[in-house]
Amino acid sequence: MGTKLLHDVEILKVSSDGTAVESDVVVPEYALHLVVNGENLATLMCLPEALRELITGFLISEGLVKDESMIRRIRIEEEGGEAQVTLAGDVELPLRLYGKTTVNAGCGSPSLFPRTLDSIRSRELPPGEPVKASCIMRAMREFQNLSELYGRTGGVHAAAILFEDRIACFREDVGRHNAVDKVAGAAVIDGLPRERCAVLTTGRISSDLVTKAIVHGIPIVASRSAPTGRAVEIARMLNLGVAGFVRGRRMNIYAGRERFDTSSVDKDTA
Amino acid sequence: MGTKLLHDVEILKVSSDGTAVESDVVVPEYALHLVVNGENLATLMCLPEALRELITGFLISEGLVKDESMIRRIRIEEEGGEAQVTLAGDVELPLRLYGKTTVNAGCGSPSLFPRTLDSIRSRELPPGEPVKASCIMRAMREFQNLSELYGRTGGVHAAAILFEDRIACFREDVGRHNAVDKVAGAAVIDGLPRERCAVLTTGRISSDLVTKAIVHGIPIVASRSAPTGRAVEIARMLNLGVAGFVRGRRMNIYAGRERFDTSSVDKDTA
Repeated sequence: MGTKLLHDVEILKVSSDGTAVESDVVVPEYALHLVVNGENLATLMCLPEALRELITGFLISEGLVKDESMIRRIRIEEEGGEAQVTLAGDVELPLRLYGKTTVNAGCGSPSLFPRTLDSIRSRELPPGEPVKASCIMRAMREFQNLSELYGRTGGVHAAAILFEDRIACFREDVGRHNAVDKVAGAAVIDGLPRERCAVLTTGRISSDLVTKAIVHGIPIVASRSAPTGRAVEIARMLNLGVAGFVRGRRMNIYAGRERFDTSSVDKDTA
Repeated sequence: MGTKLLHDVEILKVSSDGTAVESDVVVPEYALHLVVNGENLATLMCLPEALRELITGFLISEGLVKDESMIRRIRIEEEGGEAQVTLAGDVELPLRLYGKTTVNAGCGSPSLFPRTLDSIRSRELPPGEPVKASCIMRAMREFQNLSELYGRTGGVHAAAILFEDRIACFREDVGRHNAVDKVAGAAVIDGLPRERCAVLTTGRISSDLVTKAIVHGIPIVASRSAPTGRAVEIARMLNLGVAGFVRGRRMNIYAGRERFDTSSVDKDTA
């Protein structure tokens, strides 16, 4: 495991003992642009190791080639995040072949289309009233008890909207992203002021998840799981609050500390 | 929670006490085809509830609309799995807007392009030598100890190739799908006979994951987590072995029982 596979980030550790600035490690999300026979095919958000294996497996999985013999050359420019792939003969790229896109489950709905950082750079979130860390911790415990489907099948992710210190909406889906889209959509339909909401999720906080929150104007994302390095970067740049490992009376704040009121965790969650 | 959100499936429960046919519940994956202003936009693999919220959240998340006021009408034909969306004015659909596709991390690489059941129907896997259930259980324990990155960050998924009773390849990624593509790609590059391999994964077994295994000609997928209903259906149709909840000396076989040698679990894993 190369050191490049870990990013150090400064976090604010919150517990009933108070707060402490500490160092934590997160995994990067690396954008690998796949150019096949001179045409842009896709951008894979991945961990930057075993890229040749990833590309080979991906091309076969996605039905672009039947086997390795059809892959003439894979040239990876790791620095630039691009892989030039030469396939034998004329390969019809699937987008033209099918003309539409599937967003698969299990993982649910990723950002289908390249929402580059440029496309959301203007979406910096305005400052707002801090939310009590103790309230997020309590909601997260309540949230996890709500998941009947998870309890019965182990097969779903859940998301919730926290509004005025309580869970205003709770949804499950086979996909982590779908669950977040469902609660964000519910907040829109119910006319909740998104700038005073927070998103709770059971899943890891990846860059596409923070992007969803930012685009919806929701200033906090919290999870019992970990964020990626890219998610933290984007969140810091656009002023989103990110809390990971929210478990019991603890949480790690990775971005947007001013979004959280970390006083009196001990009393409130007692 | 409607009953339609649970599917009953018959499983073979394997433990050191022997085997038993039991009933289990899995969550469905529902294919929702989104048609926006008359054009196919995407197919969301999702849990079939709160579809209006999902569509609203998705359209905003993906930047197709800024807010609800731009959504004129959403007509959902639940039976047919289609939603007709009418947006105000001429909306440039992102595929034309950007001309390429991003596969996001956290969840990694979903099947980008609609690999309908029709496109893989001819890929039925031939029968093969059964793999010892006890061997899969042991490999799964070993496999989970291999993940240093997970241990340090909690932010990755892992996959492995089991070949001749041992782990031949182990890879991690921010995406469950990427991890599987990496080990499948490694098996291709290393020239392993895929028909004698099995895929181990830390993630849930969704339809796109079983599709990857089938397309690569790998006859078994095993996970400590759950499969979806659609994954089980596809696996049964195409003769893939699926074992879920592989934990300690237990596993549930959801499909392809003849792929597993369930004798002597007690002795081998002692």
